[in-house]
Amino acid sequence: MALPLPIFVLNGPNLNLLGAREPQIYGHDSLDAIKTACAARAALYGRSIDFRQSNHEGVLVDWLQEAAKGACAVVLNAAAFTHTSIALHDAARALRLPLIEVHLSNPSARESFRHHSYISPIAHGVVAGFGLLSYLLAIEAAHMLAGAPTQTQTTEEA
Amino acid sequence: MALPLPIFVLNGPNLNLLGAREPQIYGHDSLDAIKTACAARAALYGRSIDFRQSNHEGVLVDWLQEAAKGACAVVLNAAAFTHTSIALHDAARALRLPLIEVHLSNPSARESFRHHSYISPIAHGVVAGFGLLSYLLAIEAAHMLAGAPTQTQTTEEA
Amino acid sequence: MALPLPIFVLNGPNLNLLGAREPQIYGHDSLDAIKTACAARAALYGRSIDFRQSNHEGVLVDWLQEAAKGACAVVLNAAAFTHTSIALHDAARALRLPLIEVHLSNPSARESFRHHSYISPIAHGVVAGFGLLSYLLAIEAAHMLAGAPTQTQTTEEA
Amino acid sequence: MALPLPIFVLNGPNLNLLGAREPQIYGHDSLDAIKTACAARAALYGRSIDFRQSNHEGVLVDWLQEAAKGACAVVLNAAAFTHTSIALHDAARALRLPLIEVHLSNPSARESFRHHSYISPIAHGVVAGFGLLSYLLAIEAAHMLAGAPTQTQTTEEA
Amino acid sequence: MALPLPIFVLNGPNLNLLGAREPQIYGHDSLDAIKTACAARAALYGRSIDFRQSNHEGVLVDWLQEAAKGACAVVLNAAAFTHTSIALHDAARALRLPLIEVHLSNPSARESFRHHSYISPIAHGVVAGFGLLSYLLAIEAAHMLAGAPTQTQTTEEA
Amino acid sequence: MALPLPIFVLNGPNLNLLGAREPQIYGHDSLDAIKTACAARAALYGRSIDFRQSNHEGVLVDWLQEAAKGACAVVLNAAAFTHTSIALHDAARALRLPLIEVHLSNPSARESFRHHSYISPIAHGVVAGFGLLSYLLAIEAAHMLAGAPTQTQTTEEA
Amino acid sequence: MALPLPIFVLNGPNLNLLGAREPQIYGHDSLDAIKTACAARAALYGRSIDFRQSNHEGVLVDWLQEAAKGACAVVLNAAAFTHTSIALHDAARALRLPLIEVHLSNPSARESFRHHSYISPIAHGVVAGFGLLSYLLAIEAAHMLAGAPTQTQTTEEA
Amino acid sequence: MALPLPIFVLNGPNLNLLGAREPQIYGHDSLDAIKTACAARAALYGRSIDFRQSNHEGVLVDWLQEAAKGACAVVLNAAAFTHTSIALHDAARALRLPLIEVHLSNPSARESFRHHSYISPIAHGVVAGFGLLSYLLAIEAAHMLAGAPTQTQTTEEA
Amino acid sequence: MALPLPIFVLNGPNLNLLGAREPQIYGHDSLDAIKTACAARAALYGRSIDFRQSNHEGVLVDWLQEAAKGACAVVLNAAAFTHTSIALHDAARALRLPLIEVHLSNPSARESFRHHSYISPIAHGVVAGFGLLSYLLAIEAAHMLAGAPTQTQTTEEA
Amino acid sequence: MALPLPIFVLNGPNLNLLGAREPQIYGHDSLDAIKTACAARAALYGRSIDFRQSNHEGVLVDWLQEAAKGACAVVLNAAAFTHTSIALHDAARALRLPLIEVHLSNPSARESFRHHSYISPIAHGVVAGFGLLSYLLAIEAAHMLAGAPTQTQTTEEA
Amino acid sequence: MALPLPIFVLNGPNLNLLGAREPQIYGHDSLDAIKTACAARAALYGRSIDFRQSNHEGVLVDWLQEAAKGACAVVLNAAAFTHTSIALHDAARALRLPLIEVHLSNPSARESFRHHSYISPIAHGVVAGFGLLSYLLAIEAAHMLAGAPTQTQTTEEA
Amino acid sequence: MALPLPIFVLNGPNLNLLGAREPQIYGHDSLDAIKTACAARAALYGRSIDFRQSNHEGVLVDWLQEAAKGACAVVLNAAAFTHTSIALHDAARALRLPLIEVHLSNPSARESFRHHSYISPIAHGVVAGFGLLSYLLAIEAAHMLAGAPTQTQTTEEA
Repeated sequence: MALPLPIFVLNGPNLNLLGAREPQIYGHDSLDAIKTACAARAALYGRSIDFRQSNHEGVLVDWLQEAAKGACAVVLNAAAFTHTSIALHDAARALRLPLIEVHLSNPSARESFRHHSYISPIAHGVVAGFGLLSYLLAIEAAHMLAGAPTQTQTTEEA
Repeated sequence: MALPLPIFVLNGPNLNLLGAREPQIYGHDSLDAIKTACAARAALYGRSIDFRQSNHEGVLVDWLQEAAKGACAVVLNAAAFTHTSIALHDAARALRLPLIEVHLSNPSARESFRHHSYISPIAHGVVAGFGLLSYLLAIEAAHMLAGAPTQTQTTEEA
Repeated sequence: MALPLPIFVLNGPNLNLLGAREPQIYGHDSLDAIKTACAARAALYGRSIDFRQSNHEGVLVDWLQEAAKGACAVVLNAAAFTHTSIALHDAARALRLPLIEVHLSNPSARESFRHHSYISPIAHGVVAGFGLLSYLLAIEAAHMLAGAPTQTQTTEEA
Repeated sequence: MALPLPIFVLNGPNLNLLGAREPQIYGHDSLDAIKTACAARAALYGRSIDFRQSNHEGVLVDWLQEAAKGACAVVLNAAAFTHTSIALHDAARALRLPLIEVHLSNPSARESFRHHSYISPIAHGVVAGFGLLSYLLAIEAAHMLAGAPTQTQTTEEA
Repeated sequence: MALPLPIFVLNGPNLNLLGAREPQIYGHDSLDAIKTACAARAALYGRSIDFRQSNHEGVLVDWLQEAAKGACAVVLNAAAFTHTSIALHDAARALRLPLIEVHLSNPSARESFRHHSYISPIAHGVVAGFGLLSYLLAIEAAHMLAGAPTQTQTTEEA
Repeated sequence: MALPLPIFVLNGPNLNLLGAREPQIYGHDSLDAIKTACAARAALYGRSIDFRQSNHEGVLVDWLQEAAKGACAVVLNAAAFTHTSIALHDAARALRLPLIEVHLSNPSARESFRHHSYISPIAHGVVAGFGLLSYLLAIEAAHMLAGAPTQTQTTEEA
Repeated sequence: MALPLPIFVLNGPNLNLLGAREPQIYGHDSLDAIKTACAARAALYGRSIDFRQSNHEGVLVDWLQEAAKGACAVVLNAAAFTHTSIALHDAARALRLPLIEVHLSNPSARESFRHHSYISPIAHGVVAGFGLLSYLLAIEAAHMLAGAPTQTQTTEEA
Repeated sequence: MALPLPIFVLNGPNLNLLGAREPQIYGHDSLDAIKTACAARAALYGRSIDFRQSNHEGVLVDWLQEAAKGACAVVLNAAAFTHTSIALHDAARALRLPLIEVHLSNPSARESFRHHSYISPIAHGVVAGFGLLSYLLAIEAAHMLAGAPTQTQTTEEA
Repeated sequence: MALPLPIFVLNGPNLNLLGAREPQIYGHDSLDAIKTACAARAALYGRSIDFRQSNHEGVLVDWLQEAAKGACAVVLNAAAFTHTSIALHDAARALRLPLIEVHLSNPSARESFRHHSYISPIAHGVVAGFGLLSYLLAIEAAHMLAGAPTQTQTTEEA
Repeated sequence: MALPLPIFVLNGPNLNLLGAREPQIYGHDSLDAIKTACAARAALYGRSIDFRQSNHEGVLVDWLQEAAKGACAVVLNAAAFTHTSIALHDAARALRLPLIEVHLSNPSARESFRHHSYISPIAHGVVAGFGLLSYLLAIEAAHMLAGAPTQTQTTEEA
Repeated sequence: MALPLPIFVLNGPNLNLLGAREPQIYGHDSLDAIKTACAARAALYGRSIDFRQSNHEGVLVDWLQEAAKGACAVVLNAAAFTHTSIALHDAARALRLPLIEVHLSNPSARESFRHHSYISPIAHGVVAGFGLLSYLLAIEAAHMLAGAPTQTQTTEEA
Repeated sequence: MALPLPIFVLNGPNLNLLGAREPQIYGHDSLDAIKTACAARAALYGRSIDFRQSNHEGVLVDWLQEAAKGACAVVLNAAAFTHTSIALHDAARALRLPLIEVHLSNPSARESFRHHSYISPIAHGVVAGFGLLSYLLAIEAAHMLAGAPTQTQTTEEA
């Protein structure tokens, strides 16, 4: 049986440390907690998510390319790569899907090297600064932009 | 009877032209349509809104000062003043309430003079690029950050 | 009886001081003298003018919005706001009328903070440096760009 | 009976919040307390003051123009407009009176966007960083620069 | 018989291509059409013109030097040299005649390398953005600034 | 039997999307088509190629190090890494072989963040802007710079 | 008899010194040697060339204008003018022919004032750093971009 | 008998030339006249001063270190060193006393290399532009910030 | 039996080429020689080392995360990533261990793109320019900062 | 009979206006007066001069190339081209003769666009700011650097 | 009897305040404590030190010149002069001895005006951020770079 | 008997090392040799010199102040202080005597931090790049600008 394509929620370097890493900036939620909350929110809209994290720029590029065929929308927290990776910019640009840039903290309120984003100019929209809530709002935005869930993905058990 | 304090939704210069002004950038929704949708969304959370627009920087400063006493949170689309007004920055900074910066379009994808925001560094969070949906997500964020609605505002009929 | 729409001639901050303020830069003509000369020149072309001045950025934004319905063209001397106001830039951009930027002095020959204009990139043309004559040439340009005078404005006595 | 012209003490945006707003930066004195202290200091020199505050750039421009006729000197705390307003620069430049720039805090010790002043290059002098005392020193400077009090203003009861 | 000195109308590189070259920017008028219209406009004021074009910076410098003796005013469209030639700046500076800078298009609305002009700081005024009309307004300005036509040039047939 | 060392043709991130990705910029040729054409061109000169692509900066560094021993020359399209990777710069610098930088599009005609190359200063030469033809010209340059094909690589079947 | 239009190969200032001038940068080939090699390469494709050099910016502008009618493609080594001439940029932009920018050395590996090119953004492609070989590759590119040789030029003897 | 600690008034390079050096900028008062006026003003508050001048950066650093033990407050006119000396910045920073930066002229109204101050960010306040009066206001500020005069310095005659 | 945690000595891209790569800059010691010398030096202090190298930014991020649990201190030569990797900056920042930045050469004496370090602002200290000796000094610093060796790591043979 | 090679004294744009053009900057000496004085000074050393002026950059490049064979040294006042011409820089660089840069005024004391020189980095020395005397000192320097006068130029009458 | 030449340990402005001055940045060790520790460390290697401090740039220049004859190596903490003194740069450059730049704190982690060093580009190496330990590591580096202690200095008692 | 005032020849930091320090840049002449040559040249004009050197900025400021009374002109080689000392700029500015800036090497051909001079904008002229000859030419310039030698200095024996 065909299932709707999931929303890809892709997370960049060091986000696997969430909860432990500088909680005054990133909050106390672990990445797992965020994943669970995102899945629950997506379920409200009849959506599933595919939630991943990598410290490798190349892997994130691979996943963005994979999303072109396997996702209905992408929520991307590129973390440090937001500010340095033209490769991600190019991969995102080649993606013909709704792309939501998300950040836990507000980069504009931090060091100047976090003020420029290579993702923003090509994202449909940005949600930043609300901690875990940033992800939930991004899921809603992804849902709205992705249109009605479609049935093109065949489940393995089908 | 005491009513909960509303969410102030403050809009800056030229936003009264929405719908007519460059719809390829700002979308086809009029400011009235946005107001109605915001009110509806707020109502879902048991909140009311106080929705205003002005072309005058000083008026927006006045309103932010007024919000300190009369609002539970502020959603601010400072439009052009986002990029030029330190006065709004200072007013927002003196505000001890949740402040959500919102934009219909994605400033990062436009002219370079729209890339810097005097509001972002002091906002709790930012939602940009989703058109009318930006406002709705901001209302949710304002609601979450404002905590439980309180009963300190007395209705006129009381 | 319907009258043709006037050319709006809008003047920014401190221009009400003309004649007294730094005459070596701005000349000895008062703003009233300029108004009279503009009206006379417009009359040569069968045009009327609506000549205004304000020290308030917001008022100038309001007037540019009003011009969209009530003017056939706009001659704008935004004075100091030329260099700082993105709000005027946005208002001018939303205007679907001929827009002529005018300056009494030549901003390029003055302080570096007067070298950039937020109006120029969206004006149809610029006339600068000729004192009162700048306005007269701008009136001619406005007349030419506005096309044949139309009869859509009803006189009060009608 | 004719009274000497007062010293105008003009205050820019958000200064009406003094005492409450970031007291670690601006001190605990309210604007009213500053007004009272300034009046007392001026009285020592046989001067009166006209003490005003506005959040509106245009109103401050209007007041500077009014000062040309109604004041013997101007003490100006343009607050946020110090750093952004060429309109105030131009108005101050057209003023043929002693002009003292004053700040409660020391802008050089704060964010870089507060390091440049459009007022300084045309002020006779600057006093910054001493809180309420900044105003008192500025009153003394205004008094000294204004020369002997003159009798050109007619009192209302006259 | 002595004739009044003509207005020099000097045109820089690639302007000989007008009409064919990027008409969406420069309009459909050929340089010959502009010459004819300028001559007609000048004739209205009892003036003649000397209309020239060169792709060579040195030739334009030579002509500006020649203008010092043979012209009553100069209208200069230095085209690309506007932005690169200090030699033209120096030649124009040595010129003791009214100098009007003219552009068909509005350089401020084009690439950033066209935003700076070496001519503007020493021109009496600038007219830009009106296509052929820019030249006509410049002719009027040149006429006004040149004062009453004088009779110091001897005609060849005299 | 010993075979001559191949020309390495190394391709950076997102080039595996060629043909589908922004064809107005990158053309309609797929990376496979480019590989085939390169091989054919190299064969004309009695050369073979080793054609690879990766989205991972580290992999490209590894390959450049491998080239030092296994290639006679390198043709490198580092794509987005061209503008951000000092690691590739260092790897290329340690390479004692002819290195040709190649681009399908002309980076100078695109966004400013593509105007700087970390590869150019250490490449023997650059070919850019000709689409597939860029690669073919680069193959010829590599062939010329590599000198006569040598026989130091042993074939697997040997 | 009509001959196909030649490829213009235009060379800028000081290139007539090749061979003698800094051979460690520009190589030992004289400009004549390059001309001969280009002609030979063009002949391989059934093309002729028109090879010229000038130290005068204006002459190069003239030649680019002439190319519009008399050439099938242009190979341009603007030398020092590459970095300073907006006039050449404009002339090249008005040219509706394939334009190949060529350099003997690699400007990116030299002084920073050689890193920006006014030609690159409007060239079809760039070949740099290969010495004489740069020209040969550029000839091939010009040939490919020019399409099949046409017969529109009448020989003098015809 | 113990005397209260004096206010150090430290003057940097070339201030010994006052009166003769550019009086249109620095006024006609000699440094001796300033010393006398400062002493008189301090006496009004029951304070003494220790007034010094040096052209040597190192000497000024030494004096600032000496002030830590021997002064109740420091008034510092670092003159040219204001803009270049991080050593003075560091010495002032190590000082745990009220520090008043003072200037005769208004550095903001002079050359751009005088616009930045290494002293301002660590001074309690700044007084600039009032000539001799700057010093007197600074003495008052120093007095106010130093608190009640203390009796810890033993007079030599005691 | 439990062993003290080792010092991680992490090496970035191209350092595996040491000895061969530009010996005039990096010296003639191979990375193996450095490893051996570091181990010997650490042994002097009763420490062991875990010495690794990777050309992959992601792998270095992984290792820094691993160090949080498995190391007593980190000596990091991020090589080219020093200047480009915010991801390493973030990983290092999340590390609650002594971090020593080390370089063989002195980046300040090389190209300007090597003058900025994303590691320095969060390192406890930096040692650069001494070749192999840089590592040995860094080992000593790591040892001193790590405090007394602890016994929390269980040996495999235990 | 063979004569020693002359010193070339080459003058750039607008220097033919000397005496009339801004004498407060350039002095009252005409270019002819300078030529005469230079010739006299050179004669003191047994040298002749070849003194030329052009408004054309290309002509100056030609002359520098000619100097390589016909001069013993070059004194160059490139005037405005000093600041804009890389072509002259390249020509001067190809010259294997003593090259003295000379200026009548002191460019460092004028507009910022005259502060950079493309000639200085390749000149043997610079003399600026002494008016006519600058040339005389430059002649002496040229004489000293050129060594003993040689007899390789054949006079026309020979 | 001849003694080996000592290592000069030169300390710049305000370092005499160590221990008292901002201990959170510079640590609690006094300069005397550092001197003692350095001497002890040097003794381990059979070296002596000559440890000095001055607030005067000129004195430090003198000492660097003296070192050329009287020292075997120099450890230099130029403190504030690190960032401003080209004179020290030049003196260090003229020194033909091992030069080690040392800092107690990590300048890269402090204000941006401490990020550039005029010493680094000419130092053999840098040690920064380890407090007193920085000096000890620098002594070791100086010892290693200075080679075997030599016997050229005659003791006073000899 | 009264003697004419001497020309002060003032030399800045590290110039006492001449001959030994980087002779490829500064030449092989010692400072003594330069002094002797200057004295001889001055004698040709009936002038004496007062030749001094110091590594201390403050001493050079003192000497410039002394020159105001004791010299007829000043030749200043401020060496490193040329680029950093506003104090010397101010002292030179207060000097009402001919001031000649001199350099042995050509700062424009060296590091970028030597390209700006605080002396040039206020010097009468500059001579740079000719080694010892720079000084001799400067002596001639000083002589010419100082006018006829005067007899106001009393000899010691008088």
